Amino acid sequence: MDGHRVAIVGGGFGGLSAVLKLARAGVDVTLIDRRNHHLFQPLLYQVATGALSPANIASPLRNILRRYRSARVLLAEATGIDVKNRRVVLSDGYVEYDSLILAAGSSHQYFGHDEWERFAPGLKTVEDATHMRRRILLAFEAAERETDPEKRRAWLTFIIVGAGPTGVELAGALGEIAHDTLRCDFRSIDPRSTQIILVEAAGSILPSYPPKLSAAAQRMVERLHVTVRTSALVTKIDESSVTLRESGHETTIPTRTVLWAAGVLASPLARSVAEATGAALDKQGRVTVQPDLTLPGHPEIFAIGDLANFSYQTGHPLPGVAQTAIQQGVYAARAIIRRLKGQRTSRPFHYFDKGNLASVGRATAVADLRWVRISGWPAWLIWLFVHLMYIVQFRNRVLVMVQWGYMYLTHDRSARLITGDDPLPLDL
Amino acid sequence: MDGHRVAIVGGGFGGLSAVLKLARAGVDVTLIDRRNHHLFQPLLYQVATGALSPANIASPLRNILRRYRSARVLLAEATGIDVKNRRVVLSDGYVEYDSLILAAGSSHQYFGHDEWERFAPGLKTVEDATHMRRRILLAFEAAERETDPEKRRAWLTFIIVGAGPTGVELAGALGEIAHDTLRCDFRSIDPRSTQIILVEAAGSILPSYPPKLSAAAQRMVERLHVTVRTSALVTKIDESSVTLRESGHETTIPTRTVLWAAGVLASPLARSVAEATGAALDKQGRVTVQPDLTLPGHPEIFAIGDLANFSYQTGHPLPGVAQTAIQQGVYAARAIIRRLKGQRTSRPFHYFDKGNLASVGRATAVADLRWVRISGWPAWLIWLFVHLMYIVQFRNRVLVMVQWGYMYLTHDRSARLITGDDPLPLDL
Repeated sequence: MDGHRVAIVGGGFGGLSAVLKLARAGVDVTLIDRRNHHLFQPLLYQVATGALSPANIASPLRNILRRYRSARVLLAEATGIDVKNRRVVLSDGYVEYDSLILAAGSSHQYFGHDEWERFAPGLKTVEDATHMRRRILLAFEAAERETDPEKRRAWLTFIIVGAGPTGVELAGALGEIAHDTLRCDFRSIDPRSTQIILVEAAGSILPSYPPKLSAAAQRMVERLHVTVRTSALVTKIDESSVTLRESGHETTIPTRTVLWAAGVLASPLARSVAEATGAALDKQGRVTVQPDLTLPGHPEIFAIGDLANFSYQTGHPLPGVAQTAIQQGVYAARAIIRRLKGQRTSRPFHYFDKGNLASVGRATAVADLRWVRISGWPAWLIWLFVHLMYIVQFRNRVLVMVQWGYMYLTHDRSARLITGDDPLPLDL
Repeated sequence: MDGHRVAIVGGGFGGLSAVLKLARAGVDVTLIDRRNHHLFQPLLYQVATGALSPANIASPLRNILRRYRSARVLLAEATGIDVKNRRVVLSDGYVEYDSLILAAGSSHQYFGHDEWERFAPGLKTVEDATHMRRRILLAFEAAERETDPEKRRAWLTFIIVGAGPTGVELAGALGEIAHDTLRCDFRSIDPRSTQIILVEAAGSILPSYPPKLSAAAQRMVERLHVTVRTSALVTKIDESSVTLRESGHETTIPTRTVLWAAGVLASPLARSVAEATGAALDKQGRVTVQPDLTLPGHPEIFAIGDLANFSYQTGHPLPGVAQTAIQQGVYAARAIIRRLKGQRTSRPFHYFDKGNLASVGRATAVADLRWVRISGWPAWLIWLFVHLMYIVQFRNRVLVMVQWGYMYLTHDRSARLITGDDPLPLDL
């Protein structure tokens, strides 16, 4: 395998599983990422709601790969792909490759309303999570100091846009914060008067789940004092309100805190390779891949995870979840190793859906395991086990367990810090 | 005690011990802080060097005080004291008081060279610590990508200015990072070639310690590959170098990372009350207090901790450490409670020096317990016990213990994250 250089862009679930597979086989591989850490995104909402610290769900990429001498980590920003000369273009140089795996993931999108981002932060990075945490905690602080009842009400109104797993988990955690964690913390306000509104454009929350589980999840979040508004379209977001359209009727809700858990948009690298190879881009900016995850005419370029649209198996794109990315990363790495050994091209990629899990507040969850659908605390135990198992480092597993155990017993959250270079004034 | 309102500015060691004492006695007390958390500053260097997460050493003030209904927390910036009208002036309002405890602490000072701050960050807040961590980790990343040997050398040169406990602890931790933690992490550089220089203007490191312990500490840091330069004055710091003057001779050392652990300057609130009361300010901006910690002519105003210069006992100001602030906070709170009960004014403040501890890298420390002076791992065990005991919340004690245990066994550090809104380019 000497001399063959693999480059991987992105150290998320897809890129990490690919680089580990290749490194274990002794292949010369370079992992390029803007961040020095792999982030366990499914638990990012717990950082945003003060339950965990960022480091508990982030593992330094160099640390993960330190034992594999053929693997190299490059902290750099990939700005494009020079398909013809086979190199990844960085903001300050380039990396040559013989095989390339694109796993740069996605960020939020505001469906043409980029001006909403300022008022409705999303949740993709550690910085997003500490920013969201700051916004949530500062809203309670501002309410405590506000004397005008209407303004105070707006500070105590939280609107979560998008009721996929992240939105549902955020709403549930906010319910717990308001009714449990902060109950005795204030003197002028009663945090239990907090209004939490979960807005979803589809007809039910967790729209990709079976209707029975969606309904169960809705009952669970409502028990946590969350108001669910389905079939509701956001038409406007500004500094002090959100406007919803429900069956043709518009309502404006005064609020100072809007959390965005709706659309995602693939990394702009997808566009770069699509233009060079003639592959199609979908509405989420994902590049359409071949059955073997490569790009048309470019068997040396794989696109995986949130960056790729793979529709052969089910007729529509695979879900943008960790297991899709992991399975595709392993597939791409294996395909490269096979070629290097001179073996025949492997079979088309096949996604094995292990099911879906979403946690909804304290000790409740919904689990769609395909062969069985459960909700309540048995689902939560499965959720707990699966998440702990997939956290990358043993130490983090222990730290997360200690904090969850403590939170479960005391209803307290360990990481309720307001940080940021300018934590005041409260007026954001 | 009805109707008597106490205001406390600052939720550090001094303010927190005072507010707890007053709250337990049922006194109406308002704690004003810019931050929502009490920070365990003695371990801040462990956040800066990736051993702990910020939340492990920070406890929400509201959480600490939630059970005391007569205590109130105000997240606000105190900008001055209106001594005549007895109110604390905030950036957005004011708080009236009958008794006031000033415990606003200190920040860094650059001895008239404020332009150094950009190149030589200090360590006082959570943001300072994550910024310093980012600088340290990015320096290694930049060295890995740098091909020019001289420039690479500058990236791998770390200069710590000031060899008090923080400087010594930082230097020792950097030695461990370079020679242990990161040993297998890079491919182009050998982190063991890192140069760590600890600069001190006095004749020895830990100048406030007995000479025997200073010498022991110096041997310990040198074992961690730290170069000690005592009697060395910093005359210039810029983007790419530090200039030292040693016995009249100037040397310029190329470096990209300078960490500031030298001077402190009391909060500007000290000046505000000094001007209003005629109390003297010292060179560190501290206000000179009376034997009972009050200001001349103002028995209702106490100044404690890093904000106060109390020189009656030893002829020079008490050290700016946690135990000074804690004892003064308790004294001030007790004095207020006595007055409210109509009891006679208490005796002058008396500082009981329990001794000093500084940890120097892995399992070594120096301890000056007054009646005995020890160094090495027995001192480290004492250091460990005392620090764990003083961490405010039980959960944090457990989390810190787990991480220290893990670090001790694996030589790994749990929180090596590069965070910040713009983590790249490497050029800072």
